[in-house]
Amino acid sequence: MTYETLLWEQDGPVLTLTLNRPDKLNAYTATMGLEIEDAFVRADEDDSVRVIIVTGAGRAFCAGADISSGAGAFDAKAEGSVAFGDAGTTARRRSGGGFVGAIFNCRKPIIAALNGAAVGVGATLTLPMDIRIAARGARIGFVFARRGLVPEAGSAWFLPRLVGLPTALRWCLSGALIQAEEAKAGGLVAEVVEPEALMDRARELAREIAENTAPVSVALTRQMLWRFSGEPDPWGALKVDGAMAMTLGAGPDVREGVSAFLEKRAPDFPGKVSSDMPPQYPWWKD
Amino acid sequence: MTYETLLWEQDGPVLTLTLNRPDKLNAYTATMGLEIEDAFVRADEDDSVRVIIVTGAGRAFCAGADISSGAGAFDAKAEGSVAFGDAGTTARRRSGGGFVGAIFNCRKPIIAALNGAAVGVGATLTLPMDIRIAARGARIGFVFARRGLVPEAGSAWFLPRLVGLPTALRWCLSGALIQAEEAKAGGLVAEVVEPEALMDRARELAREIAENTAPVSVALTRQMLWRFSGEPDPWGALKVDGAMAMTLGAGPDVREGVSAFLEKRAPDFPGKVSSDMPPQYPWWKD
Amino acid sequence: MTYETLLWEQDGPVLTLTLNRPDKLNAYTATMGLEIEDAFVRADEDDSVRVIIVTGAGRAFCAGADISSGAGAFDAKAEGSVAFGDAGTTARRRSGGGFVGAIFNCRKPIIAALNGAAVGVGATLTLPMDIRIAARGARIGFVFARRGLVPEAGSAWFLPRLVGLPTALRWCLSGALIQAEEAKAGGLVAEVVEPEALMDRARELAREIAENTAPVSVALTRQMLWRFSGEPDPWGALKVDGAMAMTLGAGPDVREGVSAFLEKRAPDFPGKVSSDMPPQYPWWKD
Repeated sequence: MTYETLLWEQDGPVLTLTLNRPDKLNAYTATMGLEIEDAFVRADEDDSVRVIIVTGAGRAFCAGADISSGAGAFDAKAEGSVAFGDAGTTARRRSGGGFVGAIFNCRKPIIAALNGAAVGVGATLTLPMDIRIAARGARIGFVFARRGLVPEAGSAWFLPRLVGLPTALRWCLSGALIQAEEAKAGGLVAEVVEPEALMDRARELAREIAENTAPVSVALTRQMLWRFSGEPDPWGALKVDGAMAMTLGAGPDVREGVSAFLEKRAPDFPGKVSSDMPPQYPWWKD
Repeated sequence: MTYETLLWEQDGPVLTLTLNRPDKLNAYTATMGLEIEDAFVRADEDDSVRVIIVTGAGRAFCAGADISSGAGAFDAKAEGSVAFGDAGTTARRRSGGGFVGAIFNCRKPIIAALNGAAVGVGATLTLPMDIRIAARGARIGFVFARRGLVPEAGSAWFLPRLVGLPTALRWCLSGALIQAEEAKAGGLVAEVVEPEALMDRARELAREIAENTAPVSVALTRQMLWRFSGEPDPWGALKVDGAMAMTLGAGPDVREGVSAFLEKRAPDFPGKVSSDMPPQYPWWKD
Repeated sequence: MTYETLLWEQDGPVLTLTLNRPDKLNAYTATMGLEIEDAFVRADEDDSVRVIIVTGAGRAFCAGADISSGAGAFDAKAEGSVAFGDAGTTARRRSGGGFVGAIFNCRKPIIAALNGAAVGVGATLTLPMDIRIAARGARIGFVFARRGLVPEAGSAWFLPRLVGLPTALRWCLSGALIQAEEAKAGGLVAEVVEPEALMDRARELAREIAENTAPVSVALTRQMLWRFSGEPDPWGALKVDGAMAMTLGAGPDVREGVSAFLEKRAPDFPGKVSSDMPPQYPWWKD
């Protein structure tokens, strides 16, 4: 794939998407939003992609929305306006949530490798991802209240679910930049590693998933955890997991998983996300 | 404002409310509940108040409901009964939740400065607040099960959202008093500081918000985080934050926020909570 | 009680249930599921039981589903199939959730004492319990994706509520075994203790609850925390806790709790779970 603001590089089962406007600290534009959405839709459909890593080119991950057009940068009617204008709105409508929806609905696990500053939308776009690791020195900021804005990209839903309400309130009400270590203490970031080791560690985490797990299981697990955790009681999860256990339990992935375990060898799961999702999926559209 | 059980002291943008029955360890009464509610309703409407600090006079924060009338203290029909009698009920009806509703619906950030023991309702009344800090040595207790009662003031909803279910279950099922340090480990309290430094630190946190953020942004952020975090999926948050970004992005607060950032100066936001909330607010009443 | 796969041992107010297939590492079978359900239903109704401890015989807690029948172990139509076949389905139907429902609906606090490996269903069956402690060296695994399965027993709902979404995603997407210490860091396990001290510590936690709290209060507290924490806002909790405070506040348990506190003596609560639950319970069936 060739994009204007994004690099698409695949190495075996691991796809790395790199935000690629390094001279602008990878500042977010409406085009970048559309390209992220497109890349996630394509990666979701491509069985050769098992895990997705998202990182940034140069010294920043994403410094936030591109406000180089000045005070009117967030005014959808102003020339040079970013992100929240027609393009963003159209994208949201098209996919049911724009790039947030494309990431949220994706059936592949997603690892954000924060190589440097992740501010504003540069922070919130990583929230629907599954694992975040950060380079020591990277700073993260939910700075909306300092610009006259509010938490965007659904982050008022995502952030408290990831770090708890007390931490989400503290970070968003002050709008201050936080260090990678504080992000780890709050649970936003799973690991802080030396900058030069960041991508190796991200790939190691990706391979651990790709080499040991069934693609269909991982796709379902990701959607089950994100979606059932928000329900008021466990009965919906129990109903769906019971039905899926019956279907999957009689299928070839489980036969392979159990056999490989009993034979103490690596599994080779036949099931594909593109064609072998169980009939219960997507259960939330009933 | 003059209250019987509460001190109202404003210093610039920071309002400090002090529970003021020090000879009774600030034990909660029905009058105190009504006065807390009234104070929060007034502070919410007063644009000169940017941040609210709540603390206690003397050596306790609030030792719980006043049970000086003895075994019938919680019996609404008994003379001298506290808190849950007619007064409490009337208050809850009037504002949609009594003092809990008034705190929850408030558009100003709220910092609880726990100067000493916070027990029973003295602990639960701080849960709808945004940031809690505690003096070293302060003890906190969700002691309801030891009195034959149940978690009150909505705390069965608030506490698990703040500290997670395992910690909430552990604290409430045993009913034991916990130390400030354990409260910090559980996430209930953001910081434990030396008693003599408590109020300075609370004011420092308050000023960080007041000096750097837009009042309207902070009001919306507070309500968005508390309310959207409880929804089953991110779509409601995405819809509202998208619409508000369009409105706010074309307005004067964002122009000022972006200009101040680009000019590396402190912002001076014109928007007022009393008159400039966007038309999407309050979205939950649709 | 006499079971095939379970030991029932009561010592005063503390019931210990021991998974008892030590030569099979207490591997889970359909019979074990039915017996766990039955034991929790009986313990729920028995006023002499105040707290329940669940542990395993021998060196494992529960090594997961019994897959000794081979590749077809999870196929409900195959001979020797475990757990998710007719027996499991019938049990779920009968009690509204099988053993998960019986544990979730129980009115007694439940402590899981993880004496050794807790893998697959051996891990998920502890999630509807209230407090988990683990012996040093015990390993825990949400290994479903490595077998071609998905998180079962409602764990897609339970696990994120207990440890937060980032940790739940990390553990379930990789399917790796985790150490007791990592489980504690994630919040799943409250304490890690030396193996020989495990049961003493579990009994100590049980007695702290049994000796200090009112049975009816504890029963209600457990259900309130689990159930209200999943609701989108605090109003349901406020309504129910207000009504229950009125009922309980005029009743004998509160008179005893307040008197004992004022007289600085241990309480002796008269209320029984079998006969004295307030009329608001069970509020979720309105």
